[in-house]
Amino acid sequence: MSNTTQLYLEYKNRLQKIADIKYAGAVLQWDQETYLPIKGNDARGRQIATLSELAHEQFTAEKTESLLLELLNKNDLDERQKRNIELSWYDYQKNKKLPSSFVRKSSEAINKSFHSWISARAENSFAKFEKPLQEVIDLKKEEAALLGYSDHPYNAMMNEYDTGLTVAFTDNLFSTLIPQLSILLNQIKRQPQVNNDFLLKHFDKNIQWDFGIELLKNMHFDFEAGRQDISEHPFTTNFSSEDVRVTTRIDENDFGNMTWSCIHEGGHALYEQGLPKSEYGLPLGEYCSLSIHESQSRLWENCIGRSKSYWEYHFPKLKSHFPDPLKNVNLDLFYKGINKVTPSLIRTEADELTYHFHVLIRYEIEKKLIEGSIQSKDIPSIWNEYYEKYLGVIVPDDKRGCLQDVHWSHGSFGYFATYSIGSLYAAQLWNSINNQQVKTIENLKTGDTNLILYWLRHNIFPFGRFFSSDKLCQKATGESLNAEHFINYVNKKFQSIYNFP
Amino acid sequence: MSNTTQLYLEYKNRLQKIADIKYAGAVLQWDQETYLPIKGNDARGRQIATLSELAHEQFTAEKTESLLLELLNKNDLDERQKRNIELSWYDYQKNKKLPSSFVRKSSEAINKSFHSWISARAENSFAKFEKPLQEVIDLKKEEAALLGYSDHPYNAMMNEYDTGLTVAFTDNLFSTLIPQLSILLNQIKRQPQVNNDFLLKHFDKNIQWDFGIELLKNMHFDFEAGRQDISEHPFTTNFSSEDVRVTTRIDENDFGNMTWSCIHEGGHALYEQGLPKSEYGLPLGEYCSLSIHESQSRLWENCIGRSKSYWEYHFPKLKSHFPDPLKNVNLDLFYKGINKVTPSLIRTEADELTYHFHVLIRYEIEKKLIEGSIQSKDIPSIWNEYYEKYLGVIVPDDKRGCLQDVHWSHGSFGYFATYSIGSLYAAQLWNSINNQQVKTIENLKTGDTNLILYWLRHNIFPFGRFFSSDKLCQKATGESLNAEHFINYVNKKFQSIYNFP
Repeated sequence: MSNTTQLYLEYKNRLQKIADIKYAGAVLQWDQETYLPIKGNDARGRQIATLSELAHEQFTAEKTESLLLELLNKNDLDERQKRNIELSWYDYQKNKKLPSSFVRKSSEAINKSFHSWISARAENSFAKFEKPLQEVIDLKKEEAALLGYSDHPYNAMMNEYDTGLTVAFTDNLFSTLIPQLSILLNQIKRQPQVNNDFLLKHFDKNIQWDFGIELLKNMHFDFEAGRQDISEHPFTTNFSSEDVRVTTRIDENDFGNMTWSCIHEGGHALYEQGLPKSEYGLPLGEYCSLSIHESQSRLWENCIGRSKSYWEYHFPKLKSHFPDPLKNVNLDLFYKGINKVTPSLIRTEADELTYHFHVLIRYEIEKKLIEGSIQSKDIPSIWNEYYEKYLGVIVPDDKRGCLQDVHWSHGSFGYFATYSIGSLYAAQLWNSINNQQVKTIENLKTGDTNLILYWLRHNIFPFGRFFSSDKLCQKATGESLNAEHFINYVNKKFQSIYNFP
Repeated sequence: MSNTTQLYLEYKNRLQKIADIKYAGAVLQWDQETYLPIKGNDARGRQIATLSELAHEQFTAEKTESLLLELLNKNDLDERQKRNIELSWYDYQKNKKLPSSFVRKSSEAINKSFHSWISARAENSFAKFEKPLQEVIDLKKEEAALLGYSDHPYNAMMNEYDTGLTVAFTDNLFSTLIPQLSILLNQIKRQPQVNNDFLLKHFDKNIQWDFGIELLKNMHFDFEAGRQDISEHPFTTNFSSEDVRVTTRIDENDFGNMTWSCIHEGGHALYEQGLPKSEYGLPLGEYCSLSIHESQSRLWENCIGRSKSYWEYHFPKLKSHFPDPLKNVNLDLFYKGINKVTPSLIRTEADELTYHFHVLIRYEIEKKLIEGSIQSKDIPSIWNEYYEKYLGVIVPDDKRGCLQDVHWSHGSFGYFATYSIGSLYAAQLWNSINNQQVKTIENLKTGDTNLILYWLRHNIFPFGRFFSSDKLCQKATGESLNAEHFINYVNKKFQSIYNFP
């Protein structure tokens, strides 16, 4: 064995053991959100904190540095090995800036804030959440300072989810997107509105569950390498590319809740199941960025899962599951209903257009929280103010307002913008898929999603973190992120649904 | 803060972090046996191995030794602190004998053997399990050599489950127990046999599940500090005293399978839920020994759960759940049926008498495997031979023979004898509970188990590992383990059921 091979093996072995610890932490998190008995919260919090601290300690140990420095100087690594080392070195330098004790403290604060969010939601009162959340915000500000940034501390946060993502870039993106969406929304407002009352009839829980599983199977979610469970807030997690877990929630009086969360998480899960197994624990075994991750979920949820072609196959099946609530509904009515555009209170239930206003509101609030111009206590009032300003809706209570998302309780500041960016990527990818594979829609109408998966398995999944979001997008679609694809997609779609030229 | 207080805090903090890692490993194990998708096996195996290795590395680090040595010399520790330090020092010295790499290797071999046991069982063929099992056995022999022992290498194995337990002690116990049981069995054989066919009728899965949950609630299993799930082999595990998980399995054509496994695991779980929360991660927060643990499960399963008094309350409820299969069954018939004595193939389904022959067979085989006089490949033939010799039954296949128990696949050699010893402890505790609290049976007839729990909460649970099995038994019952209590208990019980003086 050459010296380089030996060293690379040592590096791989080290990184994989660290991944084992991180994935173990992810199992504990998953369990916490699905099955943990309530009194287990405290011990679970410390267990997760200990694993975070340990993983961080091991990753930032001198041994990691010396291995990486030696490997950075080798010129007999292959291209993928070289890229792994580069990315690990980047990660190392970044992580080195955070003391392990800080990582533990953050993990503990996040656990506390998560549980207080759960109770605050149950009691429909932000007050209980305010202090634990401010603690998390203060730690995030400290984190930004430790990591360093240029221009805006929030850049350090966004960089965690999509390397290089900045306030400048995102502000610019929203300043293109939002006016265009406003024009479209105004056009829609002037047209006769579509009806979606039938989605709010009674849909039996167990049958919904079975239908969700069918949808996941149709997407080729591999149930031998994953599973679905129930949680408060749907999410996807993974403990290897062969153990990918999605969760959903079921509302018997709102069929859409389960269905599109199921397809959404399924999109995330296909990406995780498609990442290269041989790179377990190494950067190339990880997803590119959360923007690209979200492009996968939004591609399936919206471009595919809210298309007429998709439901041409699934609607008859759905009707056979739920003959009663869908008695007088045909495909056309259904398709229009599931795409009804209307300003609303809940982000995860929003249509494809107003969704971005929900994201914008969170993005604006987060920037202010991280720069310190507002505090946790100011959230409810600014939230309600923005909802009236941007969406014209009055927020009746915190549960349907600033307590609706789990993200802040998890300390995930800087995350939300990737939802909008991911949607834009999705439309751009969808455009390329259809251009490069002309039978995509035709097959989709027969329930065949193989062409879509084939394309993703060639253009997105195998690269892991090899390319940046931008490079991956260029490689797959021939250009950088271009909001026009999304704008064209929604204009075309909603002009047809709302009958205007 | 005094120097001792400071040092003790450091020790506690260190041990608790190590416990976090171990409990995280237990969560991963639990998930592996309940929810893990099949392709996740490999990654899960390495994740568990990494956590075992890490916990061992941290526990056997020099820092642990120096802390313990300093604390051993302090004379201003309170009694409980002192005992924690002594026990940790004992654990440290023992663990120090095993290299962390050996711990990892063992964990990996056990994972492999566990999964091969699952497939071998599914295929009903020992062949597939033979080699992975032999690997585990070889590692166990190596472990015995590393740990050291006097007289017999199997003593090192038994010591892991009940400190100080030896082959000499156990041989002696069986040589008292088995002849007495044989006499009783022969007496029973000469009497008219009881009928239990009704237990093998059709019992709906979901209703069984609900009934099991009811039984657990009646025992005061705290569902806010635990839960029940389904697994291949029922077990109890815990991740703190406030997160205790039991599992069960349900056979629609064998009502007893779920019921008594549920009560059995419930007994284990009450013990774990009753251990002192404030001693999280420290020896006094741990159970005394597996013999005492088993005394808790067998107490509930048999002394209580197979008593007529218990079913006086539960049988009417059971009948209302299952009116059909129990149509012509009254309490007397039911009580006799669930206590039917008959030599059988499956340990977990055995009656209270023949059970000990099942244990004896495993104990004898294990001794031979560990001393090296037989190999893994010899197991099926010796197993079948012993079943014919001790129980007079012909083993038709491996699934109902040597593949029935999970223990060997887990590397749990030295464990089985604690099942018999636990049963003897249980009878002795049951005798004391009834002597000390005369209303125990009277209350049990009305479904009230509070007196039992009260006694256990005063005499067993709060001590953790403070006392040895023997000391704890003496404290609680006034004498050391005395097989006469069990022998009297079964003689009285089965003389009445089988109508002989």
